[in-house]
Amino acid sequence: MELKEDFELKSQLVDSYLRDLMDSAKGIPEPLFSSMKYSLLSKGKHLRPILLLTTLEMFSYDVKNGLPFAAAIEMIHTYSLIHDDLPSMDNSDFRRNLPSNHKKFGDGMALLAGDSLLNLACEVALSSEDYPAEIVNEATRALFIKSGAFGMAAGQCLDLNQVNSEVTLDDLILIADYKTACLITAAVQCGAILGKANKEELNSLTLFARNLGIAFQIKDDILDVINNEKNDESITTFVDIIGLDKAKELCKIYTDTAIENLQNLKYDTTKLKYIAELMLNRVR
Amino acid sequence: MELKEDFELKSQLVDSYLRDLMDSAKGIPEPLFSSMKYSLLSKGKHLRPILLLTTLEMFSYDVKNGLPFAAAIEMIHTYSLIHDDLPSMDNSDFRRNLPSNHKKFGDGMALLAGDSLLNLACEVALSSEDYPAEIVNEATRALFIKSGAFGMAAGQCLDLNQVNSEVTLDDLILIADYKTACLITAAVQCGAILGKANKEELNSLTLFARNLGIAFQIKDDILDVINNEKNDESITTFVDIIGLDKAKELCKIYTDTAIENLQNLKYDTTKLKYIAELMLNRVR
Repeated sequence: MELKEDFELKSQLVDSYLRDLMDSAKGIPEPLFSSMKYSLLSKGKHLRPILLLTTLEMFSYDVKNGLPFAAAIEMIHTYSLIHDDLPSMDNSDFRRNLPSNHKKFGDGMALLAGDSLLNLACEVALSSEDYPAEIVNEATRALFIKSGAFGMAAGQCLDLNQVNSEVTLDDLILIADYKTACLITAAVQCGAILGKANKEELNSLTLFARNLGIAFQIKDDILDVINNEKNDESITTFVDIIGLDKAKELCKIYTDTAIENLQNLKYDTTKLKYIAELMLNRVR
Repeated sequence: MELKEDFELKSQLVDSYLRDLMDSAKGIPEPLFSSMKYSLLSKGKHLRPILLLTTLEMFSYDVKNGLPFAAAIEMIHTYSLIHDDLPSMDNSDFRRNLPSNHKKFGDGMALLAGDSLLNLACEVALSSEDYPAEIVNEATRALFIKSGAFGMAAGQCLDLNQVNSEVTLDDLILIADYKTACLITAAVQCGAILGKANKEELNSLTLFARNLGIAFQIKDDILDVINNEKNDESITTFVDIIGLDKAKELCKIYTDTAIENLQNLKYDTTKLKYIAELMLNRVR
């Protein structure tokens, strides 16, 4: 199968799993239910769940078994976007070319939809029946450790604090490491735990994910400039600090390093490499 | 031991467990860390963790083993208070006689502190090492099912929707059932699962918790009137609908029913009954 096709097939698999999950979720009152679905089922790339499933698949396990965890990480990612867009954070009116959640449902309901998606992520991951309870426990913990106050939320705190203050390139790399790379690391670590990776494999994959995550954030900053989509002038980006050309170079360096981190693995890493290159070369 | 002493001892046990937990939490950046601690370690009653531990103890298990779950439910409760106080929800400037979290740390940091506490709740509960992974996962799920979009968050959605609209007594009972009773049910169910309750015992304890939770909300509304602490005139309370005397009667009826729900249990329910009466007779 073509690598592009494989990526898109996994994206569709995640999308239809999420749709089935929300279709069978009875008892969530309106407009909370619509608000959760609006953001969760919007046309995202599903990068994090695909990374999770691709990592699991590399260890020769059935990707279908990873779907509850893939759904959970997409829920965590979606909750973070909803809360990030709120007026007290990035104050974004748009997300994926549609009104942001709070613009459509109001600030209070967007807050609750985010909270509820984080909550549901835990529930869905723990409901997995295809692994022993120990593995389910460990894989779910991996998702939550890297997305909370020791990971993604720490990055959002650093990001909130950098507004209107002097930041260096090192600061930006640190923020990207927490804010963006931690959730990508959570995805890869979760897939590795489900795939019964040993400690060395887990370390190599963690390095891959961290470098890929930082590259991803640099690319985001580059695309914001190229596509003229930078919303908030008070936030300093990689392009602000080192300029567009150097930012492109840095993005390539982090991507190459990520791919190098895969070299020690005794598995077929073609698909993970492809994803790293896809992220580097994306145009939106 | 006196029942009052036992209650207070459990409260102290939870408090010092939470303090130790936060003391050993390295790597959370400021001011996120301070914001989380500010609300989590404020002088709450610890009703929900105490209910969890008391239920567990009823089944003759060591309360100490329940502490990670007790901490988790206090974190979930605290996150819900922080988010509830935000301008887009109840817009409360004070909580427990201190500035609310967002008044002290700003709306964005309060949002992140709430998110991070919900996240940490999952992590802490799943880190429990005193039970088999099956039980840990099931007990954690109980906490999350009843606090998310099928439980507490559903109640917050209903509550947000009732602002400035006509509500009946039945509406208020439904809202109290979700918004308040669900988290109390989560506490009791989690304790019951850890205590290896059978299905009938779980059912009786669930009924107890639901009725206790509704009584708790009615009492809250009564105390807001008596202590002149009602913040938001746009929210309809039990006292608004049926008056103070009838609200007191209704609170007593729900408390009595809760206590009746314990009668089928073949365990010593003295401590659970005491908690129900303590809640009925509290003055703040």
